[in-house]
Amino acid sequence: MTTSTPQPTTRTAAARRPEQADRPERTGQAGRTAPAVAAAPAYVHGYSPAEARRLGDQADALAELLHLGTAYPPGSRVLEAGCGVGAQTVHLLTSGPDVLLTAADISADSLALARARVAAHAPGARVDWHHGDLHRLPFPDDSFDHLFVCFVLEHLADPAAALAALRRVLRPGGSVTVIEGDHGSALFHPHGEAAQRVVDLLVRLQADGGGDGLLGRRLYPLLTAAGFRDVVVGPRTMYADGSRPDLAEGFTRRTFIAMVEAVREDAVGAGLTTAEAFDRGVAELRRAAEPGGTFHYTFFKAVGVNP
Amino acid sequence: MTTSTPQPTTRTAAARRPEQADRPERTGQAGRTAPAVAAAPAYVHGYSPAEARRLGDQADALAELLHLGTAYPPGSRVLEAGCGVGAQTVHLLTSGPDVLLTAADISADSLALARARVAAHAPGARVDWHHGDLHRLPFPDDSFDHLFVCFVLEHLADPAAALAALRRVLRPGGSVTVIEGDHGSALFHPHGEAAQRVVDLLVRLQADGGGDGLLGRRLYPLLTAAGFRDVVVGPRTMYADGSRPDLAEGFTRRTFIAMVEAVREDAVGAGLTTAEAFDRGVAELRRAAEPGGTFHYTFFKAVGVNP
Repeated sequence: MTTSTPQPTTRTAAARRPEQADRPERTGQAGRTAPAVAAAPAYVHGYSPAEARRLGDQADALAELLHLGTAYPPGSRVLEAGCGVGAQTVHLLTSGPDVLLTAADISADSLALARARVAAHAPGARVDWHHGDLHRLPFPDDSFDHLFVCFVLEHLADPAAALAALRRVLRPGGSVTVIEGDHGSALFHPHGEAAQRVVDLLVRLQADGGGDGLLGRRLYPLLTAAGFRDVVVGPRTMYADGSRPDLAEGFTRRTFIAMVEAVREDAVGAGLTTAEAFDRGVAELRRAAEPGGTFHYTFFKAVGVNP
Repeated sequence: MTTSTPQPTTRTAAARRPEQADRPERTGQAGRTAPAVAAAPAYVHGYSPAEARRLGDQADALAELLHLGTAYPPGSRVLEAGCGVGAQTVHLLTSGPDVLLTAADISADSLALARARVAAHAPGARVDWHHGDLHRLPFPDDSFDHLFVCFVLEHLADPAAALAALRRVLRPGGSVTVIEGDHGSALFHPHGEAAQRVVDLLVRLQADGGGDGLLGRRLYPLLTAAGFRDVVVGPRTMYADGSRPDLAEGFTRRTFIAMVEAVREDAVGAGLTTAEAFDRGVAELRRAAEPGGTFHYTFFKAVGVNP
């Protein structure tokens, strides 16, 4: 998943880091900050306290969906590999304030944002920040009790190699937790062909960038192939309809559709679609967030053990 | 969802009734009985006790997924509209042995099979069987306390009209429960284009027959438009990977892939594909049920109240 949070990283747009929509700013193109998206000016600013609270509720709902069951004992050594701008880091620190957390990312800019976010949301929390490539972390073998990897593998050319490299720094008996989305699980009503095409473009661009927007369904074979044991994968679904306008707005529009909109320039620039067709698809997709619409998206959460 | 149970009904093949795979026989073309499907002879017979138990476990897993939360008080008047061959009827009678159950279906042949199934699985249960069209049931207004409708709306040309007709026989304050699948939620790994095409053919044929294989996502707007209130829809996902070979065999292969295979003749006959392309797609799809594969399918369960 991409994000509604600015993400000045060095990734290509098709391989930007995903985060949940817990801040109202627009998703930026990778390497840029919060570009205006003509089709959705209302996303940029102008939030009332009620709207902010509603979005907070939505972010809480998504965080609960993703983090439920993840709580590390006090004093345990936890590595968050690929922490990005820290969206999940703050949740890890909330559920486990006394863990010894190391957060690593390849982007110094993202790490700076993550530090600021943690300072704002979890003041007093102690985090060891590490700037580096998760394929080549400098930590000794068995340095950690637990690994947490969220919305990272989908951006990597060889997620199996990344998992193997991460397993090295996990002690025997330690746990790994991996969370990924799968854009193929995006079901929207009304269901239109133009909308489906822009979702497919998202997957296509991510693949062209060396990633895999359909990675969620692959977690079990990836983790077992990397040598983890007792792997359990569970689908976790966000579903929004007219009974949950907060989720329709916060998740369907501001998280999923915003992620789709963020690839507009790349898709048009690559000649994969026209601006008109793209905008028509996004307009169709937005009907899923209206009162008569529905939206479904499945995340996959995997937990395994290092033998 | 279609079924691994013979279904001699008068429906077209593209609109056959879905049931879960709780019997080992092959799905029949509508109006025929258990035709041999060349590509899957092993499905027809030859079950060992261990295999039967494994399939039973799988059927239990699916029944639990679908029926969890549905339990009617003793003495309550329940209408199962579109009971088909009784696959869900036996579960309703198991969770509520003292309900006053009426089971209705438009197919006399299906009803005969449903009676036999109930006699075998819930001996002593009392069911009022009704042969008739759920759009024009002869019961007086307010005849029932609860409605149960499972895998029925997807086959109807006007599901909203059917829901409105059913609401008439439900007393004010009574509940409605509707369960539907959504073939768009079928995620399979490995993900191949040929496999995706045969899944798309299933949806296409169901649409050509006047149904909607993507109906699950529409439940909320359908029920609210039909006048039900307090509608709550929850996605319920079957997910099978190498850690659950029973589900991979029982659900992925014997339920979902069997349903796809059952439209082979229609798809080829209608000129929508060739036999070779269809078989290639099914072969690709079967890899999702092998040890390195995964499969995901979401059912939608809606509960509402008649105001």
